Amino acid sequence: MSNPLPTSVLVDPGSGEMAGRTRRYQKRFDELAGLFADEAAFAELVRQRGSEVAYQVDEFRPSERAGDVIFGTSTLYPGKVGQEYVFTRGHIHAIGDRPEIYHCQSGHGVMLMELADGTVHAEEMRPNTVVYVPPHWIHRSVNVGAGPFVTLFCYPADAGQDYGIIARSGGMRDLVVDDGAGGWTQAPNPRYRPRALAGAA
Amino acid sequence: MSNPLPTSVLVDPGSGEMAGRTRRYQKRFDELAGLFADEAAFAELVRQRGSEVAYQVDEFRPSERAGDVIFGTSTLYPGKVGQEYVFTRGHIHAIGDRPEIYHCQSGHGVMLMELADGTVHAEEMRPNTVVYVPPHWIHRSVNVGAGPFVTLFCYPADAGQDYGIIARSGGMRDLVVDDGAGGWTQAPNPRYRPRALAGAA
Repeated sequence: MSNPLPTSVLVDPGSGEMAGRTRRYQKRFDELAGLFADEAAFAELVRQRGSEVAYQVDEFRPSERAGDVIFGTSTLYPGKVGQEYVFTRGHIHAIGDRPEIYHCQSGHGVMLMELADGTVHAEEMRPNTVVYVPPHWIHRSVNVGAGPFVTLFCYPADAGQDYGIIARSGGMRDLVVDDGAGGWTQAPNPRYRPRALAGAA
Repeated sequence: MSNPLPTSVLVDPGSGEMAGRTRRYQKRFDELAGLFADEAAFAELVRQRGSEVAYQVDEFRPSERAGDVIFGTSTLYPGKVGQEYVFTRGHIHAIGDRPEIYHCQSGHGVMLMELADGTVHAEEMRPNTVVYVPPHWIHRSVNVGAGPFVTLFCYPADAGQDYGIIARSGGMRDLVVDDGAGGWTQAPNPRYRPRALAGAA
């Protein structure tokens, strides 16, 4: 039998470090080129912090078999690019009807979600918030706080990730930006191109 | 489309209360008859606390569709029956190859796991521990602490639960008992009957 054994891992809610992970994945700020609306501000961020880690994923992946689950931590460091808060690249699941749950461990963030037709939904997250991202929703984490935004996620092991759906549309429909009063708000993304809807009348 | 909408729930890590749940399930102590080795001690517990809640499950169940996930909180109150620590009834998934993850929110517990052939594995849990229960492992939560033992769980939505596999064997192979020094230890269950192994040579 190739079944995995019972396993225990330990999550540090402040740093997102997961002792017992099977894999770690990191993105530096200089790997996020083309994602932010203000290109001059992004160039300046890269000049100052380009080689720093923007976000990190620690995961426990027992298998990629249908019916199994993968879980792990996502740690997104704080920052702004012009008025835009720093975010993860975001994805939709390659098998589109697979959901995901995110459980906030620390920090202050927004789960920004979007359907292919451009319907947008944002959920604010603080410690102990759990967000259910339903099937067929593109999703991205945004850090609107001053410290790391750490979530514990869980999703079906066969889900996979499609990152291209966001890139092909020039980003997500809305930006999450500074509201000028220490909070956040949504603003239209000027570079957004609506997706052609298969099957639309 | 009957897909669920994005949803946010809030977990109270101390009480296990989940605001935004779709269902709550409770078991009183007097509903746990026949599960503990010391029947006189169980009768005394029922006399004193029979109508109290022994454990409670708050869940968010978007669907029972293959590929979806169900999550929720399990809150197991403290207690002992003779030398045995209080536990949940326990189950194996009706679709046997479905796993489950448990993330300790508060308290001190043990995830007691067992394969059909009687192989036993116990994982101690404190806040921030995450246990992966692999496919084909029977599992039960045990509270070895002085306060509520609260976990957040997540499992594939089509998994289902089979409770009979434990009852038919007279319980799980090991008991989790007081070690006489304020801690816990495993002891053989005198009522355990090994399962007939289909396909054994």
